[in-house]
Amino acid sequence: MVKSGHLYGIGIGPGDPELMTLKALRLLRTVPVLAYPVSFGKSLARSIVAEYLPEGQIEIPMLFPFKIDESAQPYYDSAAEKLAEYLSAGQDVVVLCEGDPFFYGTFMYLYTRLSERFPTEVVPGVSSVMASASALGVPLTYRNDAFMVLSAILPAEELLPKLAVADAAVIIKLGKHFTKVYEVLKQLGLAERAKFIEKATMQNQRIVPLNEVDPTTVPYFSLIMIPSQWQP
Amino acid sequence: MVKSGHLYGIGIGPGDPELMTLKALRLLRTVPVLAYPVSFGKSLARSIVAEYLPEGQIEIPMLFPFKIDESAQPYYDSAAEKLAEYLSAGQDVVVLCEGDPFFYGTFMYLYTRLSERFPTEVVPGVSSVMASASALGVPLTYRNDAFMVLSAILPAEELLPKLAVADAAVIIKLGKHFTKVYEVLKQLGLAERAKFIEKATMQNQRIVPLNEVDPTTVPYFSLIMIPSQWQP
Repeated sequence: MVKSGHLYGIGIGPGDPELMTLKALRLLRTVPVLAYPVSFGKSLARSIVAEYLPEGQIEIPMLFPFKIDESAQPYYDSAAEKLAEYLSAGQDVVVLCEGDPFFYGTFMYLYTRLSERFPTEVVPGVSSVMASASALGVPLTYRNDAFMVLSAILPAEELLPKLAVADAAVIIKLGKHFTKVYEVLKQLGLAERAKFIEKATMQNQRIVPLNEVDPTTVPYFSLIMIPSQWQP
Repeated sequence: MVKSGHLYGIGIGPGDPELMTLKALRLLRTVPVLAYPVSFGKSLARSIVAEYLPEGQIEIPMLFPFKIDESAQPYYDSAAEKLAEYLSAGQDVVVLCEGDPFFYGTFMYLYTRLSERFPTEVVPGVSSVMASASALGVPLTYRNDAFMVLSAILPAEELLPKLAVADAAVIIKLGKHFTKVYEVLKQLGLAERAKFIEKATMQNQRIVPLNEVDPTTVPYFSLIMIPSQWQP
């Protein structure tokens, strides 16, 4: 019987290829099968690591829908089965994950389908949350701050009480929810303190004052940071 | 007049030297002056990067007290002045930061003292929060989860309401506060779901079921993770 291959979910960081870890680079260069998510015909993850790819790797583009709901499940099933073919045949497979695989990542959908069948290792990566603080030049949390990460998709009545108990926070996945989030921040008196950043560390990174953001053009990969007020 | 040197605060990740980023490695190897925190006569940060250090670098150990309060300020003042001497003389300086520099890091105390006087760049790193999820093999947050990071130092009456609004959470800096935190988790019905890890990704990493932890030996670098309950 053939020994199973290993599945590696590797975090490749927020966008700047230099923010990949040494471990991710090693696996990327040595594992023979490379899988990555594709949406709208493009793979952001593959473009981040493109300069490091060795020749002759087998590539598996995984078509994932942008919307994650019940209708997405067959896409994950299909991708997992494709990877399982290689793993069953004894080939190691590396899956590229933007940011960190276990932090709001799509790798989870493969992990839950494959980790009990095949030896699996997850390699953590730099999250866009930390990368945004560095890019903005604003310390995020000090000492004993309570820190919160929220999705902009939540309704205002859920965002309000959660933000109210945090000393520092990041609201991710802004997209078309920008205006709602901005209103919530104004209501809590946090709008002055908040910072906006699009595509942190990517080549097209953009930092704009909150009151100059055009709500109609805010991408999914953008966030608002409310840094700690604590003064050292 | 001599042109100022650049100050770099680089995240070196949670402990495994391979979890350093390519950018941190490049700076570590090319910047002539290397500064790092020292507590109790040892530098964890320097030990993480030791294998990558070039020869002939000027090293500046910075004696930082473990307790961060008013009494710690003169130590930060003194370290900042030492770095300023090199920066003023036109030498670049790299400061090692465990995890990520702007996420509960001590680099902030140097950043606030030096970033207005010298060109400063912060390089984000893999946080122990993300590294712990990977080490435990447990996805941390899905989709639109509200995620919270709390310090175990907070009193139970502050931990309770904050944990109550989160879908997933990590409680850091456990140390002697383990028992208090464990009681809070029991009260909220979260103890079954919670995972404990010490020194994630370090050589002496330790994972123990929560009910087998000896509260008298819990180190500062340990955390409890309450992963998302969401099922994909």
